[in-house]
Amino acid sequence: MDLQALVCEVHAELDAASERGRVADYIPELGKVPGAKFGIAIATMDGRCVTAGDADDAFSIQSVSKVFALALALGKIGDGLWKRVGREPSGSAFNSIIQLEHEKGIPRNPFINAGAIVVADVILAGHRPREAIGEILRFVRVAANDETVSIDPAVARSEQEHGFRNAALANYMKAFGNIHNPVELTLGVYFHQCAIEMSCVQLAQAGLFLANSGRDPRTGISVVSKERARRINALMLTCGHYDGSGDFAFKVGLPGKSGVGGGILAVVPGKASIAVWSPGLNAQGNSQLGTRALELIAQRMGWSVFGA
Amino acid sequence: MDLQALVCEVHAELDAASERGRVADYIPELGKVPGAKFGIAIATMDGRCVTAGDADDAFSIQSVSKVFALALALGKIGDGLWKRVGREPSGSAFNSIIQLEHEKGIPRNPFINAGAIVVADVILAGHRPREAIGEILRFVRVAANDETVSIDPAVARSEQEHGFRNAALANYMKAFGNIHNPVELTLGVYFHQCAIEMSCVQLAQAGLFLANSGRDPRTGISVVSKERARRINALMLTCGHYDGSGDFAFKVGLPGKSGVGGGILAVVPGKASIAVWSPGLNAQGNSQLGTRALELIAQRMGWSVFGA
Amino acid sequence: MDLQALVCEVHAELDAASERGRVADYIPELGKVPGAKFGIAIATMDGRCVTAGDADDAFSIQSVSKVFALALALGKIGDGLWKRVGREPSGSAFNSIIQLEHEKGIPRNPFINAGAIVVADVILAGHRPREAIGEILRFVRVAANDETVSIDPAVARSEQEHGFRNAALANYMKAFGNIHNPVELTLGVYFHQCAIEMSCVQLAQAGLFLANSGRDPRTGISVVSKERARRINALMLTCGHYDGSGDFAFKVGLPGKSGVGGGILAVVPGKASIAVWSPGLNAQGNSQLGTRALELIAQRMGWSVFGA
Amino acid sequence: MDLQALVCEVHAELDAASERGRVADYIPELGKVPGAKFGIAIATMDGRCVTAGDADDAFSIQSVSKVFALALALGKIGDGLWKRVGREPSGSAFNSIIQLEHEKGIPRNPFINAGAIVVADVILAGHRPREAIGEILRFVRVAANDETVSIDPAVARSEQEHGFRNAALANYMKAFGNIHNPVELTLGVYFHQCAIEMSCVQLAQAGLFLANSGRDPRTGISVVSKERARRINALMLTCGHYDGSGDFAFKVGLPGKSGVGGGILAVVPGKASIAVWSPGLNAQGNSQLGTRALELIAQRMGWSVFGA
Repeated sequence: MDLQALVCEVHAELDAASERGRVADYIPELGKVPGAKFGIAIATMDGRCVTAGDADDAFSIQSVSKVFALALALGKIGDGLWKRVGREPSGSAFNSIIQLEHEKGIPRNPFINAGAIVVADVILAGHRPREAIGEILRFVRVAANDETVSIDPAVARSEQEHGFRNAALANYMKAFGNIHNPVELTLGVYFHQCAIEMSCVQLAQAGLFLANSGRDPRTGISVVSKERARRINALMLTCGHYDGSGDFAFKVGLPGKSGVGGGILAVVPGKASIAVWSPGLNAQGNSQLGTRALELIAQRMGWSVFGA
Repeated sequence: MDLQALVCEVHAELDAASERGRVADYIPELGKVPGAKFGIAIATMDGRCVTAGDADDAFSIQSVSKVFALALALGKIGDGLWKRVGREPSGSAFNSIIQLEHEKGIPRNPFINAGAIVVADVILAGHRPREAIGEILRFVRVAANDETVSIDPAVARSEQEHGFRNAALANYMKAFGNIHNPVELTLGVYFHQCAIEMSCVQLAQAGLFLANSGRDPRTGISVVSKERARRINALMLTCGHYDGSGDFAFKVGLPGKSGVGGGILAVVPGKASIAVWSPGLNAQGNSQLGTRALELIAQRMGWSVFGA
Repeated sequence: MDLQALVCEVHAELDAASERGRVADYIPELGKVPGAKFGIAIATMDGRCVTAGDADDAFSIQSVSKVFALALALGKIGDGLWKRVGREPSGSAFNSIIQLEHEKGIPRNPFINAGAIVVADVILAGHRPREAIGEILRFVRVAANDETVSIDPAVARSEQEHGFRNAALANYMKAFGNIHNPVELTLGVYFHQCAIEMSCVQLAQAGLFLANSGRDPRTGISVVSKERARRINALMLTCGHYDGSGDFAFKVGLPGKSGVGGGILAVVPGKASIAVWSPGLNAQGNSQLGTRALELIAQRMGWSVFGA
Repeated sequence: MDLQALVCEVHAELDAASERGRVADYIPELGKVPGAKFGIAIATMDGRCVTAGDADDAFSIQSVSKVFALALALGKIGDGLWKRVGREPSGSAFNSIIQLEHEKGIPRNPFINAGAIVVADVILAGHRPREAIGEILRFVRVAANDETVSIDPAVARSEQEHGFRNAALANYMKAFGNIHNPVELTLGVYFHQCAIEMSCVQLAQAGLFLANSGRDPRTGISVVSKERARRINALMLTCGHYDGSGDFAFKVGLPGKSGVGGGILAVVPGKASIAVWSPGLNAQGNSQLGTRALELIAQRMGWSVFGA
């Protein structure tokens, strides 16, 4: 089937749905986004990008940014990162602090909040927060091949004002010696990283290196090594959707990372990178229409990594 | 590279290793198996089976049996099974009981002991244990296309005598109403299922339907539906190695299920089914040489589902 | 104030209450007891026993029996018992299994179910269950100075049939080596011990040795040593009401042990022993009227151990 | 026995001990205190104060201050406090955060750190930290009937610099809405309260109102109501020694509150108030010699609340 036709079909089919989940409102800026928004973009190896719906609207990528921050941090300190953060699914809610006590301040994986705060701490590494934030943003712009990607300062500020759980996590890990910079500086980097804004088109293009063994097929730039791309994909599949990761693997069968802003980035190894966005979230805190769209696309294209 | 040459190379390379982990000895029968044993078998779509080492020695498949029992139970009651067992990685040791309290007697997935006991309870379903055990054995024989697969009664008896944790799990779930048959009968089925003996060759052939969209490529028999095969593979990838599942996905990148007897079954969707066996276990309770062999095979063949 | 007048006053005051909590019905035998029952008995040092209401009706003492079993087990193996069971409040529901995993099969105290099962295992100690049950019953009869105390076999049988959580606890501790006899025999002793039937009058008299430094003031028999009586009282105060122990100490201020049958035994060191009974339970699983009656009695008599 | 002779005897007996536990060193100021220090003071109803050893040396009372802060906070908002903090023993280490997640930001009792931070937040109540700290200090001075009690600013500052776990707890409760003031202000009050310095003599005298139904027997001043004194004593007995509370009740049998500086305040209702100090801590984090001294005093004086 033609990919463009498929994307339109899936978008139309789901856009008719009345039940779209609940828009996150723990910070006012996210709560303002219209629940009716729904975009899909698929970037393929040959440089094409097929889209449907609100694929050009910028939205807050939130936790999807953890994928890029992880790739950047691995580039900086390599496998030494795995001494400070684990690689196992967490089996509990995304802001759970229990596991940290049990494992002496080592978060289970880089995609839960605690783990992503450690990754931000690795990127900060004694520099000024402004520099670390700039470095993350440059990394995402290179990956997206788009210099217009930016950060929404109002969202970053709002995260900071409501970020008591993240402050608890960071202080807790600091007590175990697993945060090396001052807590407020590391959190500053983390909150700005979460406030990156991208459209589905930008996001799909930014994820393409993960589908193509670490290399951007359009620019030829090697973003990460082949082995590292494979391993980031593995982490996305096992840990990318908090306590809904098993279900996402079961239904969609692709590496993916969701954000509370309603975006999801999914990777089809060797074939494509998909970004979906719809702000309403399901019970696990992942985009409801987005998850369903990925399920239909993977199924109809035979794209699951687990078999046609 | 030629597959037979690769398998021999990997076997030779690892067989030289002095550090092979620790042979499980919680039941005497397992403790007697020589730690030097090491076999590999790869069954491919064209009906070939390449082997190295002790690939024809029968060993106790233990928890690898959970894959076949799951396929059988899904065939009996379909997706209703997911009301009684979850699909999320467990994030804790394989015999942990904590999670059961938190989730009201619903085990997190069918590959931890508690979940597999529920699966055995579904298969038993009011029949006599002898009949249920026979049904599981027939299913495995059909999948392996080999009528000689059998159960070691001494192992089954020994499991029963030392199975206090499993008895605790089963009684606990019974208290929540999630075991429908008498506890001792369900446990009887479970302990016999774990005592199935197979060689690497038999096991690799028995797993081939999972690599081939649910159909045995040699016999043409459809063992499970295409969608179900994909989903069982997804569960193997996210939950197949207890609290080492994330690490296995990270390093090997294939759906797999390990057993405490030292066997591992791994599936290469669309390509092959691999069985490895070496009794020494690593810290997570998975075969040390076996895991490493799968890592090398996947890497050198470019078989990871997460990219070449 | 005259004690008899006080008891009548408190009984009358509370008996008018319409809200009496919920009668336990996890076994049918307990569910049949009329919720309107309400008795009080206070035994004093001078051999008197003042009563009100249904103080002569026999009821299932259930977990109140744990006090007598503890005293008996300490008499058999002394402080060695504390290697197999702790002395700390549990901080979780009465049938929680979580803590056992954390502490390697050692229950936190002898008054939660797991701890009481270990105590029963100590009393059984290789004898036949019938003998161990007989020994517990004799101990209670001596303490109560009443040969008519008996066990309700229908309750014991019903406990056994519905005791899956207790079976889970016992099997779990067996896996850690903390149950020495066959699980089903130890549970048999435990279930019969819980099925002891006593009236408030019998129970108040049976508790008098704890108020009198270990010696029955009527018979002069030394039941336990002075130090042991003091320590059993300390355990009753800190651990006697599951996760409502702190609240009971806060409101009543006396060592006490409750049972799911609606009975509570409270000790006033140097002064008296009180038994109350009303089958309706509060949210923590302790007799609602009984707890309130003890609060009023302790307050009006100035009997709190924490000050007049 | 003469009380002065007893105190000298117990002091001499224990001062000979070579094994004195480990001096806390998580902040440098505490680590500097000589481990050989050991003081005892007992204040009685008739206004006497018998002492032994270093009873006039000032030390950091640390968590013993939680008793006075609780009394002060109850005076301000009464039983409304119990909506924000529980009254149950915690059953886990003194800085555990796990329980907070389970109970939605409500700490189990006012004597674990999380609970004491809530109490400090109640006292702060929109005022300036300097005022709240002054109010606590005034309360302690009145109770001790001694205007020279003071706060060590170096200890307060050091607590702040090393207080990441407490910052984690406070931020976590703030996320649940159970901290009403800015986190850093509430922590400022808490850290200063912990830095109060007192001698055994001052501390014993400051605790006397708890032994005397809320009234200072020397000044006649009513510090708290009779009922409140009783209830604070109950909380000290069930929750005063973190996860060693049960053991302290078992061995000593008195309401008590320990601090990491090596001090313990114990209350003998109707009779006396005891302060002991020795910096070496046992495995539960309570003064080793201090606990043992209280055990011997209670035993030899027949002062246990659980019977002579």
